[in-house]
Amino acid sequence: MERHFEKDMNLLKERLLWMGSLAERSVHQAVHAVLESDEALANRVLEEEDAINELQIEIDDRVVQLLALHQLMATDLRFVLAISRINNDLERIGDQAVNIAQGALRILRHPRVKPYVDLPRMSDLVEEMVRNALNAVVRRDVELAQKVLATDDQVDHYRDQIFRELLTYMMGDSSVVFPAFELIMAAKNLERIGDHATNIAEDVIYLVQGQDVRHPTVDRR
Amino acid sequence: MERHFEKDMNLLKERLLWMGSLAERSVHQAVHAVLESDEALANRVLEEEDAINELQIEIDDRVVQLLALHQLMATDLRFVLAISRINNDLERIGDQAVNIAQGALRILRHPRVKPYVDLPRMSDLVEEMVRNALNAVVRRDVELAQKVLATDDQVDHYRDQIFRELLTYMMGDSSVVFPAFELIMAAKNLERIGDHATNIAEDVIYLVQGQDVRHPTVDRR
Repeated sequence: MERHFEKDMNLLKERLLWMGSLAERSVHQAVHAVLESDEALANRVLEEEDAINELQIEIDDRVVQLLALHQLMATDLRFVLAISRINNDLERIGDQAVNIAQGALRILRHPRVKPYVDLPRMSDLVEEMVRNALNAVVRRDVELAQKVLATDDQVDHYRDQIFRELLTYMMGDSSVVFPAFELIMAAKNLERIGDHATNIAEDVIYLVQGQDVRHPTVDRR
Repeated sequence: MERHFEKDMNLLKERLLWMGSLAERSVHQAVHAVLESDEALANRVLEEEDAINELQIEIDDRVVQLLALHQLMATDLRFVLAISRINNDLERIGDQAVNIAQGALRILRHPRVKPYVDLPRMSDLVEEMVRNALNAVVRRDVELAQKVLATDDQVDHYRDQIFRELLTYMMGDSSVVFPAFELIMAAKNLERIGDHATNIAEDVIYLVQGQDVRHPTVDRR
């Protein structure tokens, strides 16, 4: 029974990592569709959304099966519930990638507004956050999770910089208002993806350190 | 044992509804802080964030306790897992209210840009979505959940209208770029709140109809 649980649990983690890699790829492709005005790449992101959604349902089912088959201790329960939440975060990262890809298709209709220097840097950081957050889950690695939280501050810094630069650009040339706004929205979506990675990382810290930290206050209710 | 489970379950639903009403109030206050340039109201939203975060932790704990105490059937497990996801959605609705309140504080520094006609309408709809989505959960009311999904289309329509109007406004008068952009972000945050309510409503539909709909494909793995 115990080994059966471990086997189910490992399979669950494996599927979660697979979903994470699909979500990360979607983000990468969507941002490159914006950067390289690549319509085909944007459409590929839209097509691949179904695979992520199906994987979300599969992982939800596996969580239900696992809980139905095994009577778990609180520690393992917390981990399984965290996987269910993370599954949700990954699906929403996929949604944000779709939003960016749809923006890429709208940007194509306008003349190119400026070299996108900060956007690829911001995207690299966000993709790294998603990757590190998932590895932190699987390895229960608090240090890596802390790194994700620290990176989120850098991402917010890039977002502010991109916003400020593009808004100033809009003030100077009203013909770029619409395409510049689409770039702002892409940066906003990337920020949201970083937030999802942050949520995942916070779950890891809570899982690993939470019992100890929160134990003294258990009788607060 | 069975009645004990029902008692725990009812308490859980009660706490979830309470959290929902706190989140809804935060959204309402944050939007009115924008509309009425009310600094004190914006600050109240920031202060009340902690209560929502604490409630999220409490509900998570109750979910773990409930699963640790009772060996549940798949149907009840799905419901408890949905509550855990919805708990997350409500906390993020609270986060978005905080974002709107922070925007309200930034808007105060600029001259008032225009009468905000569509924003309060959009906000009313979004608040109604949150309320209906939670009632749909507690009553397992698919019809009400469907209504939430239908309202989301109206919300997206308002968002597009607000975006278009404010961007056009920015093109005509570069001095309003920054405050108009803040209003766009408020609308964007409201849209995200509507998305969270939609996620909750989708959970209800899946919970009530899902078993039947998905049953034929159970052997797909």
